[in-house]
Amino acid sequence: MHKQTIQTSTNTYDVIVGEGLLTKIEQFLPNTYENILIITDDVVNDLYANKLADVLKSVKHVAVSTVPAGEESKSIEQYYHLLTEAINHRLDRKSLIIALGGGMVGDLAGFVAATYMRGIDFIQVPTTILAHDSSVGGKVAINHPKGKNLIGNFYPPVAVIYDVETLKSLPAKEIRSGYAEVVKHGLISDRSFFEEVLKADLTVPLQPEVTVSHLQQGIAVKAGIVQQDEKESNIRKFLNFGHTLGHAIESELGYGEITHGEAVAIGMLFAMRVSQEKFQIKLPYNELYDWLAANRYPTSIKWPSVNHLIDKMKLDKKSENAIVQMVLLKEIGIPSIINLNDHELHAHLENFIRELG
Amino acid sequence: MHKQTIQTSTNTYDVIVGEGLLTKIEQFLPNTYENILIITDDVVNDLYANKLADVLKSVKHVAVSTVPAGEESKSIEQYYHLLTEAINHRLDRKSLIIALGGGMVGDLAGFVAATYMRGIDFIQVPTTILAHDSSVGGKVAINHPKGKNLIGNFYPPVAVIYDVETLKSLPAKEIRSGYAEVVKHGLISDRSFFEEVLKADLTVPLQPEVTVSHLQQGIAVKAGIVQQDEKESNIRKFLNFGHTLGHAIESELGYGEITHGEAVAIGMLFAMRVSQEKFQIKLPYNELYDWLAANRYPTSIKWPSVNHLIDKMKLDKKSENAIVQMVLLKEIGIPSIINLNDHELHAHLENFIRELG
Repeated sequence: MHKQTIQTSTNTYDVIVGEGLLTKIEQFLPNTYENILIITDDVVNDLYANKLADVLKSVKHVAVSTVPAGEESKSIEQYYHLLTEAINHRLDRKSLIIALGGGMVGDLAGFVAATYMRGIDFIQVPTTILAHDSSVGGKVAINHPKGKNLIGNFYPPVAVIYDVETLKSLPAKEIRSGYAEVVKHGLISDRSFFEEVLKADLTVPLQPEVTVSHLQQGIAVKAGIVQQDEKESNIRKFLNFGHTLGHAIESELGYGEITHGEAVAIGMLFAMRVSQEKFQIKLPYNELYDWLAANRYPTSIKWPSVNHLIDKMKLDKKSENAIVQMVLLKEIGIPSIINLNDHELHAHLENFIRELG
Repeated sequence: MHKQTIQTSTNTYDVIVGEGLLTKIEQFLPNTYENILIITDDVVNDLYANKLADVLKSVKHVAVSTVPAGEESKSIEQYYHLLTEAINHRLDRKSLIIALGGGMVGDLAGFVAATYMRGIDFIQVPTTILAHDSSVGGKVAINHPKGKNLIGNFYPPVAVIYDVETLKSLPAKEIRSGYAEVVKHGLISDRSFFEEVLKADLTVPLQPEVTVSHLQQGIAVKAGIVQQDEKESNIRKFLNFGHTLGHAIESELGYGEITHGEAVAIGMLFAMRVSQEKFQIKLPYNELYDWLAANRYPTSIKWPSVNHLIDKMKLDKKSENAIVQMVLLKEIGIPSIINLNDHELHAHLENFIRELG
């Protein structure tokens, strides 16, 4: 079991990573609660919700609300449905919401907690690798048809309890999706971490110790950044490496067509390519490309039009006054935020798409 | 012109009260903005939106989005509609939302600002007396059919710019509604302020100097409290004086059937009655009753069932673990929070309803 404490402007919370934490969850709750609502998706519900509700049996009221699995559930309709569930289960300001699931559940349930009665406690219980990223840092949101995470809050959980045993049930696609963010944490922080991650073979079952080590290091990178810049005024934007194009691809292809991490992987390749040209440097583009290909990430996709992609990139929350900002790398571990005009962006994208095929 | 500065946990903002501020608004903006969305209701739109947009002509993009007047617009549908408007007008993180209108517009537009891209700047430009209360303190929210303000955030504006000239267009009903909160600010803070307010005759046109004085004092009471307890852990609850029953009446009769302040006025009478019995003291119940009657507040209403009212009171965000909390007065200026069980509450309500007729 490994514990990191994260300091935010409004609270302090522990991120606990280990095996078998789900059954011991009560000892990690930072307060006592009389009323708990577990929010999960239908897949995770079948696997872990009853197990979790059972171990909380000393709590007066425990209820479970379920939404369909998949990014489509980060919608205004499911958000409102869950608020109604919270009311029907009579949650009050002293109640707790547990987000049991992947990034979708964490973002959605977190936004419900952030806005129910102007904010109640919530705990992240991630069950995916991707959620090592999304569960830390206090960003919660739902999607709008015109863009991802456009509606949300900065609202930190009161704890993150990460039981890596739950990762055993993950399909390969989800492992790939999550590992893209681990790779990102390596690229923006430290060459040796990046190289260590690239030794992982995602086509065979995960080794728990290796996974725990990668996740801890990834969380440490993220935590270090968000503690310095919770509201994303400056360096938190580094975490967006690969996401400018990644989000645009996800949004254009339709959520569900490509996983978040798969889109970010392509976005990271693009950001590396632009970095190399912009800064006239050499980055391990080929090494990353080869690892992605070997681990069955989609590298050739049905490309949306460049104009549509640029339009979506401008809608990204990181863009200001309709100028696209991208995170580039001056070298591994040295990210930098660069404004790109439409003309440059257009040229880079056309080249990249041609090259990737 | 009068200026008060309010300190919150996340920012500092000025509340400026005076005549003719609307036309000088640019000098009070705390930042420069390239893109501004004015959110208002259809009534205020006709009166002031163009005027405001005109004086902002140095700003690159200014757009106006309108919702129907009335509490019904504090709905999930209008909230989502306005978020879509913000996207369509290409607001980014550096843009500004101006809430031009009464409490409904302030709460709704404030919640849009709080959650659009996880929070952008917004300014309150109140056009009602009631909004002297709601525009200060950073509470933003929409309603759920099961309860008022159940969905929202604590999210302070970057400025409150209060042009009392806009109050001249207020209908009598709205003046009454607003003055109930002025009375409340008197009752929970200071006998002489309370007595001063009770000299007001709301059946004749408002005298600007008197109104400005009352509003300033009311804002000062509220500001003093919210600065000490922004997130309503303790003394901010004092501001809920009259609101426990008030909100339940509003919700049971249906928003629009009775104004917020009219419902709160009845709630204050109830809270005074309970205070007198609980603490065995004498409060100026009759003086308040007479003033309300003379100023045409409804004192006899179509009462919902006591059980329904109590059920709604338990859903109030201030109630904890399904026990109703009420703010009572030990004397004028000395509020106190008391838990009431169902039995007591039932008895008090039945007596009160019988007495009021």
